[in-house]
Amino acid sequence: MEKKILHLVIADSELETVPESIIDHPAIVNYAKRRKKKPERIILDSTYHHSALRQLEDGERRGRPDIVHICLLNALDSILNKEDRLRVYVHTRNDYVIYVDPSTRLPRNYNRFIGLMESLFEKGAVPEDLKLLKLEKKSLNELISEINPDAVFIMHENGEFMIPKHFGKLLSKFKKPVVVVGGFPHGDFKSKIDGVKISLYREPLMAWTIVNEVIVSYEWEVIKK
Amino acid sequence: MEKKILHLVIADSELETVPESIIDHPAIVNYAKRRKKKPERIILDSTYHHSALRQLEDGERRGRPDIVHICLLNALDSILNKEDRLRVYVHTRNDYVIYVDPSTRLPRNYNRFIGLMESLFEKGAVPEDLKLLKLEKKSLNELISEINPDAVFIMHENGEFMIPKHFGKLLSKFKKPVVVVGGFPHGDFKSKIDGVKISLYREPLMAWTIVNEVIVSYEWEVIKK
Repeated sequence: MEKKILHLVIADSELETVPESIIDHPAIVNYAKRRKKKPERIILDSTYHHSALRQLEDGERRGRPDIVHICLLNALDSILNKEDRLRVYVHTRNDYVIYVDPSTRLPRNYNRFIGLMESLFEKGAVPEDLKLLKLEKKSLNELISEINPDAVFIMHENGEFMIPKHFGKLLSKFKKPVVVVGGFPHGDFKSKIDGVKISLYREPLMAWTIVNEVIVSYEWEVIKK
Repeated sequence: MEKKILHLVIADSELETVPESIIDHPAIVNYAKRRKKKPERIILDSTYHHSALRQLEDGERRGRPDIVHICLLNALDSILNKEDRLRVYVHTRNDYVIYVDPSTRLPRNYNRFIGLMESLFEKGAVPEDLKLLKLEKKSLNELISEINPDAVFIMHENGEFMIPKHFGKLLSKFKKPVVVVGGFPHGDFKSKIDGVKISLYREPLMAWTIVNEVIVSYEWEVIKK
């Protein structure tokens, strides 16, 4: 019997290099100079580029690589991943997809993670020999077609309410379910996707909270006691 | 009936300001200069102070504020905390305890978190008006006596094996259980504590993985459906 594997997609993540339209903004130029990098090579970060972000569409939600970092740390260090029952993908606002090898030991330090993301966007794969992280131009729908799942669930604040325990049970009925979690701080998905919308709580939850709830709840159902 | 509340202690955390013995080390002096802070006021960080850490006892495990940051983000953004069923404390290597108000909105950005910890160690409470985080000199045992729990569980790789689901069930039988999770990257607790040792997996887990497993498993048992 084929092993059941959960495919977790952090979707429409606010992870991108600095858009060309703000490349000359003083907040960007100074930050790039301080880090001795080219402005177009740096990862947009709302903590440091706040004033430049105001000139961008959706500026109030962009530049959140921290969300991706924390979601990935939780996912990769989970028991589910140690049991080889998890695949994680990061899909970004500009339709890039990062394939994450389950054995990846991500930098725990945020600044090192940012450096790694900058390398990844420049080179397309890191480390260059092992390629634990690979970047490809791809839409969310293309990624999901490629995974070819037998069910797609979208974690959404307006979805059908289901407590995490029951959602874990539901997920475990499928061989290859995809769970889509928004990698943005608030608002809605930008990508149009088909799937069953699920809400785990009466209030919006942080992306990493959803990741933790889904992984632990699924774990209980599929890992042999 | 009194509401059941889980008291989570991140213990022996590797969170400290730079020890006096390495205050003149070039790695520390340069880092402090770059951040325009006094060397004795900065938080020790293995990512940047690696060469200085080699001169310290336990240098290979010290300087890990990132572990505290990720554990706190996961705990504070959990459903359990939103339901007001969780209290979190950070106990450190040098016997300081950080009391964390459940309504604290911690900085998501790591560098801002470090700045906040530096303020906390300097001022004893942040923000100075609201005091959402308070620092007190206190040992782990003093903290636990103060909480006055009806059970103490220590998450330990040599503890009794119990799957997270069953541990959540066990925890829910108590009114005021304390769960102690090590806030260090590897090795054993430095503090001597009495309690029931529990292991959730056959391999060591990251501190934040244990935090997530414990919180989600407990949540299921105590939150009304």
